[in-house]
Amino acid sequence: MSVLGIDLGGTKIAAALFSAAGDMVSKESVALHGKKGSEVGGLVTELVEKFLRTSAESGITAIGVCVPGISRISSGTVWAPNIPGWDDYPLLKELQDVCGSIPVVIDSDRACYILGENWKGAAKGCSDAIYLSVGTGIGAGILINDTILRGAHDIAGCIGWMALDGHFKDKYIPCGCFEYHASGEGIAKVCRELLQETTEYDGILSDKALDDITAADVFSAYDQGDGIAREVIDQCIRFWGMAIANLISLFNPEKIIMGGGVFGPAARCIPEIKAEADKWAQPISVTQVSIEHSRLGGDAGVYGAAYLALKSIKPIDK
Amino acid sequence: MSVLGIDLGGTKIAAALFSAAGDMVSKESVALHGKKGSEVGGLVTELVEKFLRTSAESGITAIGVCVPGISRISSGTVWAPNIPGWDDYPLLKELQDVCGSIPVVIDSDRACYILGENWKGAAKGCSDAIYLSVGTGIGAGILINDTILRGAHDIAGCIGWMALDGHFKDKYIPCGCFEYHASGEGIAKVCRELLQETTEYDGILSDKALDDITAADVFSAYDQGDGIAREVIDQCIRFWGMAIANLISLFNPEKIIMGGGVFGPAARCIPEIKAEADKWAQPISVTQVSIEHSRLGGDAGVYGAAYLALKSIKPIDK
Repeated sequence: MSVLGIDLGGTKIAAALFSAAGDMVSKESVALHGKKGSEVGGLVTELVEKFLRTSAESGITAIGVCVPGISRISSGTVWAPNIPGWDDYPLLKELQDVCGSIPVVIDSDRACYILGENWKGAAKGCSDAIYLSVGTGIGAGILINDTILRGAHDIAGCIGWMALDGHFKDKYIPCGCFEYHASGEGIAKVCRELLQETTEYDGILSDKALDDITAADVFSAYDQGDGIAREVIDQCIRFWGMAIANLISLFNPEKIIMGGGVFGPAARCIPEIKAEADKWAQPISVTQVSIEHSRLGGDAGVYGAAYLALKSIKPIDK
Repeated sequence: MSVLGIDLGGTKIAAALFSAAGDMVSKESVALHGKKGSEVGGLVTELVEKFLRTSAESGITAIGVCVPGISRISSGTVWAPNIPGWDDYPLLKELQDVCGSIPVVIDSDRACYILGENWKGAAKGCSDAIYLSVGTGIGAGILINDTILRGAHDIAGCIGWMALDGHFKDKYIPCGCFEYHASGEGIAKVCRELLQETTEYDGILSDKALDDITAADVFSAYDQGDGIAREVIDQCIRFWGMAIANLISLFNPEKIIMGGGVFGPAARCIPEIKAEADKWAQPISVTQVSIEHSRLGGDAGVYGAAYLALKSIKPIDK
């Protein structure tokens, strides 16, 4: 017996086979190459069919899918803002058509990340923990008393929209204040803004065309002591610290796990982020929480998806 | 059959008798007059004994108590920062000593406010709703899927500590950023700061000694078109709007109820607060929430306490 965990991201699909004991047996990825709408659905079902074929012996008994957006549980459709045409995509139906009687469970990436870390990663043993995912965008998977916070309409955890900056600016309209300043996209954007405002700069970031600068470039320049990069990352540390402080004051969690593509390189900033959070947060709560780096890294999604699958067929001992 | 709801505040104790159907039958209050420690405990038990005596006929079958701080459920002790000597006060034991076999349930004011509004007030029928209490301090009672959010150590909902202002200031240390700017105490404090900074002011607030200015004075001056008062309240509206936006983006609730002593006079600002929240919050979530004024007003605490009591003895149809 085995289960399949699928992690559909904005640029690739990863699929991993897990044993009944929860060990990852094999994994593979397929790039989206800018595909849209039903082409992406087709890639997912192809990958699932391939695993069903090649794993006929071990017998896949359930499938979990992690999607980059909202899983509408009642309708089985998915809203994924970064996949064109996925406003209300009938993913569950398409998968059920190829999976027959094998149960399929779909959930948001936020939910899968914290479920994965809670099952096999940094949040093991916690009942109240939060995964702060900082990648292209920002989201939070929030576990309260062993249950995912979903909200009245399945869109809780949209922490990228957190108001942190005192006065509203129009540039926050498309993505929210926190995401504007401290996501992967945000790091690149804020850096470009600073470079445009700075006339006397001739540091390493000036070697690149402004539009080509990425968050990775900013971290690389930061490591080399670049002043602009330092300013950008210091600002991020401030916003990450404030956001974490707000999670601590509101949720009084046991752990906050920092993950996503930016953590990654930003993992080195966790001590400074903690120091910033210390200043703002409820002073008792802040002593009761541990702020840690994701242990599953880029695999948090497939682990969470596999957990959904396993849980759909049997009770799981965490 | 009846139940007793007790609301222990920072300045008075209110007690109300409720019928089994949940109707308030009678109510009375006792001022604390600056009493401390076990004197306050004595006032609570005296009031309970009096109700037990005078209601012998109707038969009080359970007692609920709303406390201004943290109810440590496992130990039955209470931390109430505004009652000197109540760091770990054994309220449950003291009450059990006078109540005998009658069950006693203690919970925080935040929890009681949202439970009361959910039972008989503005949040009736909701499974996911938040009570934002703005009085001397600020707190939030958060109902998720019909269950109070407690956190890992019973101190969730400490929204007064919410970081909203971009850069930390030392003045936030004792109470938190949001509470500093937008609580009842905060309104008075910010107004005093502005008056001290403004040399040319001779408006109505200059009739009062600086230290005597209260939030009520600021609202009264605001109603009379005073410029400083307008500035203070406008700043509060901005912070209230940001905080509500953050609750919307994180919790995706059905309703947010504005209550506490400041709402009261600030109820008139709710349309402006909504407009501010609209700018910051997750754009889908913000269309799914209703922001409303408390319907129970100063009685939210006794209603919530009575609900705790009733629920301890029978299932309640909400």
